[in-house]
Amino acid sequence: MKNTVVVYIAMSFDGYIATNDDDISFLDAVAIEGEDYGYNAFMESVSTVILGNKTYQKVASMGIEFPYPMDKQVYVLSSQNKGSKKNITYWNDSLSSLLQRINNEQSDGVIFVDGGSAVVRSFLEEGFVDKIIVSIIPILLGDGKKLFQSGIPSKKLSLVQSKSFPSGLVQVEYDVEKG
Amino acid sequence: MKNTVVVYIAMSFDGYIATNDDDISFLDAVAIEGEDYGYNAFMESVSTVILGNKTYQKVASMGIEFPYPMDKQVYVLSSQNKGSKKNITYWNDSLSSLLQRINNEQSDGVIFVDGGSAVVRSFLEEGFVDKIIVSIIPILLGDGKKLFQSGIPSKKLSLVQSKSFPSGLVQVEYDVEKG
Repeated sequence: MKNTVVVYIAMSFDGYIATNDDDISFLDAVAIEGEDYGYNAFMESVSTVILGNKTYQKVASMGIEFPYPMDKQVYVLSSQNKGSKKNITYWNDSLSSLLQRINNEQSDGVIFVDGGSAVVRSFLEEGFVDKIIVSIIPILLGDGKKLFQSGIPSKKLSLVQSKSFPSGLVQVEYDVEKG
Repeated sequence: MKNTVVVYIAMSFDGYIATNDDDISFLDAVAIEGEDYGYNAFMESVSTVILGNKTYQKVASMGIEFPYPMDKQVYVLSSQNKGSKKNITYWNDSLSSLLQRINNEQSDGVIFVDGGSAVVRSFLEEGFVDKIIVSIIPILLGDGKKLFQSGIPSKKLSLVQSKSFPSGLVQVEYDVEKG
């Protein structure tokens, strides 16, 4: 058995996860006290987090040095940084070798792909994504970093569920068909 | 009172309304006997259809010369064609003058913007869209003609409703906030 690779992310209705300046303040439109849109429940299921270095630096710059609970193994994809500290490991080898390593260490867990755009692209290009859970924010951003960059391989999706929230956020969950 | 301008269209989850070759066969994935995803009910409410010439030619090439019921006034945006036949009128003046003409003739109706991509862009750029109803097809197309081209003005949306169907199609309806 292997782990399930899940892209879990928010995007504007026109498909952007951030502005070109990496501004994500459009997410504030759906920020409501006491409503996490299922994030904590999802994180409970997660054993491993994989994210790009720029996304990690962005999160770290928000004043949270270790933004993920210590029971999660976090891999930061980086060609420059090396080594590890606490639960964070920098990874500069291929994605396939990383997934092999994770699958060797444990199975049946959830691997959370936390972005950004280039990391999601790499996972999709290599056919490594099992599931996509996207929170669609009720806004047209007009421009920015696309969740799905053009040129990714075409893939059929299978809708697992769709939920809407009073803020106008619509969360869709798809399984990615293989082959 | 004026008419309500509605963009009613289908897109892949990664935001394309057609491939770069104008192929829309990805829509076949959700084609189910007896399920029109609300299209006929929507068309009942429509008084006027506006579409680009390429989209019109595409529809006409499918063997349906007059694809819209005769009780609809259809405007085909074209810089080359002129005149009108039956309920089809070619329009080569500005969008604002077209909307003014329609609003002068009647009010409280629904104006259906039927695409394609460049037409939707023009309507959004000029701030003329009141409502967006999009059927999200469960597929990543990878590339093609985007529903929302980059560079359109940022607009807040207000979710009216979201529905999912057994085929995996998710239909979302938003009001476009003004200003």
